[in-house]
Amino acid sequence: QGILERLDAGEIVIGDGGFVFALEKRGYVKAGPWTPEATVEHPEAVRQLHREFLRAGSNVLQTFTFYASEDKLENRGNYVAEKITCQKVNEAACDIAREVANEGDALVAGGVSQTPSYLSCKNKTEVKAVFQKQLDVFMKKNVDFLIAEYFEHVEEAVWAVEVLKESGKPVAATMCIGPEGDMHGVSPGQCAVQLVKAGASIVGVNCHFDPETCLETVKLMKEGLQAAKLKAHLMSQPLAFHTPDCGKQGFIDLPEFPFGLEPRIVTRWDIQKYARKAYDLGIRFIGGCCGFEPYHIRAIAEELAPERGFLPEASEKHGSWGSNLSMHTKPWVRARARKEYWDNLKPASGRPYCPSMSKPDGWGVTKGARELMQQKEATTEQQLKELFQKQKI
Amino acid sequence: QGILERLDAGEIVIGDGGFVFALEKRGYVKAGPWTPEATVEHPEAVRQLHREFLRAGSNVLQTFTFYASEDKLENRGNYVAEKITCQKVNEAACDIAREVANEGDALVAGGVSQTPSYLSCKNKTEVKAVFQKQLDVFMKKNVDFLIAEYFEHVEEAVWAVEVLKESGKPVAATMCIGPEGDMHGVSPGQCAVQLVKAGASIVGVNCHFDPETCLETVKLMKEGLQAAKLKAHLMSQPLAFHTPDCGKQGFIDLPEFPFGLEPRIVTRWDIQKYARKAYDLGIRFIGGCCGFEPYHIRAIAEELAPERGFLPEASEKHGSWGSNLSMHTKPWVRARARKEYWDNLKPASGRPYCPSMSKPDGWGVTKGARELMQQKEATTEQQLKELFQKQKI
Amino acid sequence: QGILERLDAGEIVIGDGGFVFALEKRGYVKAGPWTPEATVEHPEAVRQLHREFLRAGSNVLQTFTFYASEDKLENRGNYVAEKITCQKVNEAACDIAREVANEGDALVAGGVSQTPSYLSCKNKTEVKAVFQKQLDVFMKKNVDFLIAEYFEHVEEAVWAVEVLKESGKPVAATMCIGPEGDMHGVSPGQCAVQLVKAGASIVGVNCHFDPETCLETVKLMKEGLQAAKLKAHLMSQPLAFHTPDCGKQGFIDLPEFPFGLEPRIVTRWDIQKYARKAYDLGIRFIGGCCGFEPYHIRAIAEELAPERGFLPEASEKHGSWGSNLSMHTKPWVRARARKEYWDNLKPASGRPYCPSMSKPDGWGVTKGARELMQQKEATTEQQLKELFQKQKI
Amino acid sequence: QGILERLDAGEIVIGDGGFVFALEKRGYVKAGPWTPEATVEHPEAVRQLHREFLRAGSNVLQTFTFYASEDKLENRGNYVAEKITCQKVNEAACDIAREVANEGDALVAGGVSQTPSYLSCKNKTEVKAVFQKQLDVFMKKNVDFLIAEYFEHVEEAVWAVEVLKESGKPVAATMCIGPEGDMHGVSPGQCAVQLVKAGASIVGVNCHFDPETCLETVKLMKEGLQAAKLKAHLMSQPLAFHTPDCGKQGFIDLPEFPFGLEPRIVTRWDIQKYARKAYDLGIRFIGGCCGFEPYHIRAIAEELAPERGFLPEASEKHGSWGSNLSMHTKPWVRARARKEYWDNLKPASGRPYCPSMSKPDGWGVTKGARELMQQKEATTEQQLKELFQKQKI
Repeated sequence: QGILERLDAGEIVIGDGGFVFALEKRGYVKAGPWTPEATVEHPEAVRQLHREFLRAGSNVLQTFTFYASEDKLENRGNYVAEKITCQKVNEAACDIAREVANEGDALVAGGVSQTPSYLSCKNKTEVKAVFQKQLDVFMKKNVDFLIAEYFEHVEEAVWAVEVLKESGKPVAATMCIGPEGDMHGVSPGQCAVQLVKAGASIVGVNCHFDPETCLETVKLMKEGLQAAKLKAHLMSQPLAFHTPDCGKQGFIDLPEFPFGLEPRIVTRWDIQKYARKAYDLGIRFIGGCCGFEPYHIRAIAEELAPERGFLPEASEKHGSWGSNLSMHTKPWVRARARKEYWDNLKPASGRPYCPSMSKPDGWGVTKGARELMQQKEATTEQQLKELFQKQKI
Repeated sequence: QGILERLDAGEIVIGDGGFVFALEKRGYVKAGPWTPEATVEHPEAVRQLHREFLRAGSNVLQTFTFYASEDKLENRGNYVAEKITCQKVNEAACDIAREVANEGDALVAGGVSQTPSYLSCKNKTEVKAVFQKQLDVFMKKNVDFLIAEYFEHVEEAVWAVEVLKESGKPVAATMCIGPEGDMHGVSPGQCAVQLVKAGASIVGVNCHFDPETCLETVKLMKEGLQAAKLKAHLMSQPLAFHTPDCGKQGFIDLPEFPFGLEPRIVTRWDIQKYARKAYDLGIRFIGGCCGFEPYHIRAIAEELAPERGFLPEASEKHGSWGSNLSMHTKPWVRARARKEYWDNLKPASGRPYCPSMSKPDGWGVTKGARELMQQKEATTEQQLKELFQKQKI
Repeated sequence: QGILERLDAGEIVIGDGGFVFALEKRGYVKAGPWTPEATVEHPEAVRQLHREFLRAGSNVLQTFTFYASEDKLENRGNYVAEKITCQKVNEAACDIAREVANEGDALVAGGVSQTPSYLSCKNKTEVKAVFQKQLDVFMKKNVDFLIAEYFEHVEEAVWAVEVLKESGKPVAATMCIGPEGDMHGVSPGQCAVQLVKAGASIVGVNCHFDPETCLETVKLMKEGLQAAKLKAHLMSQPLAFHTPDCGKQGFIDLPEFPFGLEPRIVTRWDIQKYARKAYDLGIRFIGGCCGFEPYHIRAIAEELAPERGFLPEASEKHGSWGSNLSMHTKPWVRARARKEYWDNLKPASGRPYCPSMSKPDGWGVTKGARELMQQKEATTEQQLKELFQKQKI
Repeated sequence: QGILERLDAGEIVIGDGGFVFALEKRGYVKAGPWTPEATVEHPEAVRQLHREFLRAGSNVLQTFTFYASEDKLENRGNYVAEKITCQKVNEAACDIAREVANEGDALVAGGVSQTPSYLSCKNKTEVKAVFQKQLDVFMKKNVDFLIAEYFEHVEEAVWAVEVLKESGKPVAATMCIGPEGDMHGVSPGQCAVQLVKAGASIVGVNCHFDPETCLETVKLMKEGLQAAKLKAHLMSQPLAFHTPDCGKQGFIDLPEFPFGLEPRIVTRWDIQKYARKAYDLGIRFIGGCCGFEPYHIRAIAEELAPERGFLPEASEKHGSWGSNLSMHTKPWVRARARKEYWDNLKPASGRPYCPSMSKPDGWGVTKGARELMQQKEATTEQQLKELFQKQKI
């Protein structure tokens, strides 16, 4: 059954977690460029991560093609070995995803994301050509459906949806925005309306914000669609980091991004609360993004097991709400084998000299830098460096 | 070259990270029993984790035989399928470790840990028989050396070393104790002396405490050995969690153990500081335990690259001190591509309603339970439950 | 010169701090009833506090007549000795304030606040009669102007202003509301408009919220007045506690109210920032409420000394931005004798087991209690107790 | 009855709180010099504070003669008006204390504290002459007993006790040290022994550390005396600030000292716990130092009311454990009128960007400065400044 058949039938579809962050920690992705050349270089590592998500309950395996557009890979050219072309990266990603999907009950979704071409003000035709190139591979490899994700500007997301829609396959579209809307100030409700009008059957958000904030944003999208009398399925794939203190650009503004985010990692219990809230809000495509490890996806599947009627395979190694702790050696740990304990725990950080909240970077020293960038002038590294030096306290 | 040749020559040997915690998050180990039946059930998952540690810089791959003694596996019997015998689990662990070790420059170490037999007051002969059974497999599979690890009582650790020493292979021994010493009050210095006298060539600590605390404990061991005019190599494999607030039994006492520890996870920069301090203290076998992921091991290898003269393979995907962030899209993130930034960051948790420190469980409600257990009476679950109910606030 | 002459001339007028909290800590006011019988019982304590505020820079001494309406004092009857009538409390308050005001350059303001009569649904005539009784004393004692303060409902505040306005003296009116408006949902802008139309020459907020939040609310009032093309002077008398986490009813909802607020007390440097922001926003009557001690008022006077051209008397004992620390015994304390140090300090609480934020009470267990109260049913203590017991976790 | 009669009879004697900090906030003492010229300049303010402590339950009123030695006052000469001689400051302090003591049941204690003469290496005869000068006033004014307090070096404290002892009046001696002992490394136990041998009948600690730490130190003193088979009454007058994170010199090392300590202020409930622990430890002279306001002293008296058989006067305005909140307007505040609520509260700071712990200053930048000072070389301000500049990050 295809993605729309499932959703139309009222099924809950569970997405997968974030590949670039998980594989960075495993040693296969470089933070900064964040490109997926590992599909060619280390297929076994990508395959194993897909397998873990499948086992945790994912019904959709996204091809690991984040930032795999030709312009992005070229842009990061000096980091990618010559033989690793855009075509090869995308093809390998499709092959690995399909191989693992066949081991269980999962669909393969080909994914595209925002492009350097758009950010450097290329025109609509040029930007669309970039998406088309990836789509060609997805069609050749016959993925089950398509996802346009991680867009900061609805204009570019709409162009992506228009390209993908041509294929005849179902299209999902998610933006990496918060309740304040996209980088040009278009509200979430308005973004959702434009995406559906462009042809998306599923809309929502991914990345940049924590579960709580993402659900707020999807709620605004839902209200926008209702007001416009449009119908679409809702989707949510947030960060697995707490970000109540971030600015408009999400966790990228936080001083901890990307190498000091550990204290913000959400627990499996946080995720169970997220899954329940997402469900209650009417979202039926529920997954995760950066920071989501297999055990976070399993938490979604366990929370919604009563509605779905079954547990994921990986639950053979996990008792609901910690019930397996009844097998622990120490009696006081055995006493934690119950929902009430974990539901109410306020976990400490063990970091007495650290605060609970950070000031987003964009509010302070780099305001000028951000302005420069927003003006999209040909800002050289040199100019930026000088600017930073002037602004440093 | 064997482990002692390397250490005697002044080489730095890098250990690996914690398997039970990493594989629990990936869906292959059950928290509570913490047993390693995945070596038989899902060898591909165990193999991939070994591979990631190797790639991150590990020179020693420990067989995934934690809690794989027969009495422990039986004790957890209802969780382990019939066909998964102690023998098979240990053999598979050796085979997988050897297969991956051969892909690079690493030694295989067979590992034993504390047993239910000791805790339930079996005598010396009986406890030694349990270790012997695992040793038989290690000898058949010809591991390179042996590690006795995770002992709370030096008496049991000494028995383990005595058994392992019989094999003629080098023996390392680490205890899961803090500066206050073992559960019977034997000081770290005294523990080290006893272990070396029993035949260990390498001594130190693993698990239960954070890097800072573990180094304090190894320092006390070092001083104990010096006072006794004994010589041994030093070893340290701490948690990757901050635990300044825990009691004598380490992180197991913390209310966050084991499913709410996320805010305590150490960053790669914390690990670089740990590696430097460990080196300065004279420790030359430096690794990790629960919570250590491949990127933490890589951080040890990167910090000590000047001394060792080379970087690990996984550093092809990691610039020293964040230098690859110079390739990031946002200018203010590019401004973080420097050591000074990460070295000084005090990471926030994004959890405004959570404290920085927890009260160890053992101090509060479960005091009575702990006492019961210490008396080693035949305490039934029912007795404990009644006790908890009486003590609940 | 009267209050309006001063404000019309562009002068900055500095208010005083909170009497009930300061005198509770000194042992003369009872938390809970919060009534000012100390004016009769211990005039020397009230006099000394007035003197300290005067010395710190206050230009206005408010009579200590908070909650001194007849219905309130009666309501708390069993706590107030028989001979302490409403009349006597108010008269003594006027006498003490005038005595101290004459020692310096200060005006005396007679103050009224919200009444139990309004909260128990008495009609307009009855409520106005309560204010009239206090006004009679103020006229007899010839105070310089009048302040209606601490109103949660604009309707009652308007009635108070109408009564006070009859006297011919200038009237200031402040509400204890946040940016969400009064308890019936009237916005701050709308509140300001109604108060000015009722005859207030000065409007603003006092109590319930921290300086930051109060300034936000006054800003909304200012915008409301501008939109309605009305003119009035602006006034702000916030708490000296940080309350970013409180609900609509302000700090009363916080679990720390009123006996655990210590960690929230603002520093003198927080107050200097507040004074500057208030000034920049166009507020010219700047003072404080609960939690403000004499040194907080001095901080307002010191921050605005450049604009006013003089320092308060108490600054003979206080160097600007800590400059007197240059006389300290320890050299590292001498190194703190500069603005930059105090301006950037993020003060720690020394409370490692405590969070930074609390959940307002009203969100949790007492929701039912609040609803009962909002329905203004004749809720007996017994009913409430039962309710609490049912709702307790 | 004198102090020794009371203590010998097993009575609990309650001390008073800290004058320099309380009067600094009221506008009469300058932070940095911390001298008590207010006894001459503003006797009404000093008198009122004495009165509040008396009313709160103090049985001992210390003359406000902290840092009132001639060398200290001269040292701060430019700050003290010419007519304010050492003699006058001390005489006025005695007169005010006696006046208020006569209003209730309290003793007057003349107090001396550490001197610049000792710190600048004057000899025993010279230092003793400084104490003698203050003692002459105390004898002329006939105080009830004498306290030597706030000594960092036991050598100087012993000299002070020897001088005071000559008078024939009972002598108490407290040092501002923690469990690590005095600045020359003499242990608390050893300090106590030396003080008793010099003639002190009461020994203990005051200032510099929080209640918890002070009790630890007094416990060590008690053990030292027991080991030496000496007898003395015990006394404790800690800070009212939480300081778990400070170094050897106590709160002066904390970056918040002295103008950012607000988040560390202890609650009345913290003090009740302190009073109980002090009592259980056998301490019978229980008071406070810097940060203690009248309501903190009242908390001691209320906690120990069952043992003493009466409440202090100020308790007419304070219900035990918040019981008067039953009179509050809001039902959820009325629900806080019980011990259990306040006993378990973990108060939040409302400061999301602030940590819970600070790094003591002495650990960092000023290490060199401290060393210079410890060497007691003739360090000029210029030398120190240069040193700071070199050490600044």
